[in-house]
Amino acid sequence: MKLGQLETPCLVLDEARLERNVARMRAHLDALGVGLRPHVKTAKSIDVTRRTLRSKEDAITVSTLKEAEYFLAHGVRDILYAVGVTPNKLEHITDLRRRGAQLALILDNVDAARALAAHAGASGDAIPVLVEIDCDGHRSGIVPGDPALLAVGRTLTEGGCELRGVMTHAGASYNCGSVAAIKAMALQERDAVVNSAKALRAAGLPCPVVSVGSTPTATYAEDLAGVTEVRAGVFVFFDLVMAGIGVCALDDIAVSVLGSVIGHQRDKGWIIVDSGWMAMSRDRGTARQKLDQGYGVVCDVFGKPYPDLIMADANQEHGVLALRPGSHERLPELPVGSMVRILPNHACATAAQHQAYQVVRGEADAISATWPRIAGW
Amino acid sequence: MKLGQLETPCLVLDEARLERNVARMRAHLDALGVGLRPHVKTAKSIDVTRRTLRSKEDAITVSTLKEAEYFLAHGVRDILYAVGVTPNKLEHITDLRRRGAQLALILDNVDAARALAAHAGASGDAIPVLVEIDCDGHRSGIVPGDPALLAVGRTLTEGGCELRGVMTHAGASYNCGSVAAIKAMALQERDAVVNSAKALRAAGLPCPVVSVGSTPTATYAEDLAGVTEVRAGVFVFFDLVMAGIGVCALDDIAVSVLGSVIGHQRDKGWIIVDSGWMAMSRDRGTARQKLDQGYGVVCDVFGKPYPDLIMADANQEHGVLALRPGSHERLPELPVGSMVRILPNHACATAAQHQAYQVVRGEADAISATWPRIAGW
Repeated sequence: MKLGQLETPCLVLDEARLERNVARMRAHLDALGVGLRPHVKTAKSIDVTRRTLRSKEDAITVSTLKEAEYFLAHGVRDILYAVGVTPNKLEHITDLRRRGAQLALILDNVDAARALAAHAGASGDAIPVLVEIDCDGHRSGIVPGDPALLAVGRTLTEGGCELRGVMTHAGASYNCGSVAAIKAMALQERDAVVNSAKALRAAGLPCPVVSVGSTPTATYAEDLAGVTEVRAGVFVFFDLVMAGIGVCALDDIAVSVLGSVIGHQRDKGWIIVDSGWMAMSRDRGTARQKLDQGYGVVCDVFGKPYPDLIMADANQEHGVLALRPGSHERLPELPVGSMVRILPNHACATAAQHQAYQVVRGEADAISATWPRIAGW
Repeated sequence: MKLGQLETPCLVLDEARLERNVARMRAHLDALGVGLRPHVKTAKSIDVTRRTLRSKEDAITVSTLKEAEYFLAHGVRDILYAVGVTPNKLEHITDLRRRGAQLALILDNVDAARALAAHAGASGDAIPVLVEIDCDGHRSGIVPGDPALLAVGRTLTEGGCELRGVMTHAGASYNCGSVAAIKAMALQERDAVVNSAKALRAAGLPCPVVSVGSTPTATYAEDLAGVTEVRAGVFVFFDLVMAGIGVCALDDIAVSVLGSVIGHQRDKGWIIVDSGWMAMSRDRGTARQKLDQGYGVVCDVFGKPYPDLIMADANQEHGVLALRPGSHERLPELPVGSMVRILPNHACATAAQHQAYQVVRGEADAISATWPRIAGW
């Protein structure tokens, strides 16, 4: 089977790029002497995750309990659920643990810690906990130095829970304007958790795990002393947002959407394809970057970008391809039925619109496998 | 089962609002003397579509062949596939027709018409065709008056295909700034296809079907003389984009995302919930409207909006709730574990992130049913 025989739209994964991306991240973290707990929310696929983990390793990060269920069913047991827990998920988490998941969770406040302690008392399940630290002000977590950290730690330990450590996610690194800014953010991320771990230990509380993670900071971190593990997700696939901040090159991007030309509006310079926002997602992450890529960069069926050709607009099942504003390139000849591959702004969002990966290798167009992926909660 | 017992996030559908929305559109089109061929791409659910069709009716519009497969399996046969066809889908379409689907397709150019004629000759399947007309310059279609219409019509009829008529979609109506503008757009949409039908007939070509459709124009159309059917989709659920252009009220919106509070950043006025863009979609359709609703309007668990509370930002599984900029309201007390319901910018995009509807009725929080929905291609 070749790409040209598929019904469009569908999601294509270049396994050679995936392997290269994983090898590069592994080599970098090995040099820094720190382990990897990949965030599987990007791919939601056991086939991708098997290529990310080394033999016998099974530590992963998940964003939903559905992912925890799926990876447990495939034999992966050491799982961190990295979204602040709510009381309505505790029974499910304990059920997963009774079925063999070594599932840990995160929280950032005394109310959630009290609910967890009550659950531990009632169920007899002392679910391990990492306390979330806010390293960059972008979302959740306790700001370093805030005495709330010790209050949460004591609520957990006195309540019979297992305080396992601290974690943070430098989500603001996605908005960095330079590699220097990403390197500074990596230090800020590291210091936030290392100092929080010190504060817990100084108060006599346990903190064996010190966890950081975002693909930009993981890529450019130069010293992770005091950190025990890195969680990163999108590095397996990369995307245009990552390319826009200098974390990868265009030819590192391992996923693309295969589409077919359905028509033209020649007076407007438009090529219409059967891949719209349902196939690409509504993510417009490059809109705030220096180079706005619309809904994606258009390549030929072998993955080579057409100069200046982007998906300029999208409806549910229609994409409008056009040259970038101001381009002097010529629109390529793409008759009705021609196929293109479109690199996405945000791999997590685009892959989530699909139920499987059509796997190719490098510039070949032969499909070597179809890997399913999961969705939902 | 009540909403409060569900794991979050999940998608809630208010059946009373759905019924009211359908009844209102039906009454309006009945008064105009025109039929409804609902676009099932919004709900992708046989349960919703059964409540949209009258007994014995089965004419629907689909956006994917996956929808055609699903609705055929549920006994709905009269199906228009309303995305310009590509040659790589013709075998699948003929296979669907051999299995009982009365499936018609659309196209807007001679190349696609030639491919279809070649397929009809080779397969013996004269797939019925509507020619797409461009009524507003927003996407695909032949501009009214363009001689390409007759060339396409002749290519089809001489090639042994069934030319069934013309269709258009006034997608630009989503950007109208007033009800008067929508009414004008409804006339423009109608005239584009009625005049194109006249041109075909004047050339001796058949044109029994004259099809229009967008929820704004369908809602405000006052005279559809010459039109045989209306395709509209989002009216079953409505959303904040539709409310923003005056096509519905907030309390007509039938779908919402149920989420739980996981924490607070009190100094910033943020409430963090476990429903991010994966649950809401990345659609920011209200960003270009007068009132930007962020990622959605936040309601209590019974569906009543909190004054000025919106989802101001979203990560994959995190939503940041905050008061609108400049609001004088007070942030509601929502302790960890509290549930909220968030009205979406775009119902088609948000529903697509979920695999089922949790059905409630009016302000009750009891779940009467769980309706599955499909995804993919």
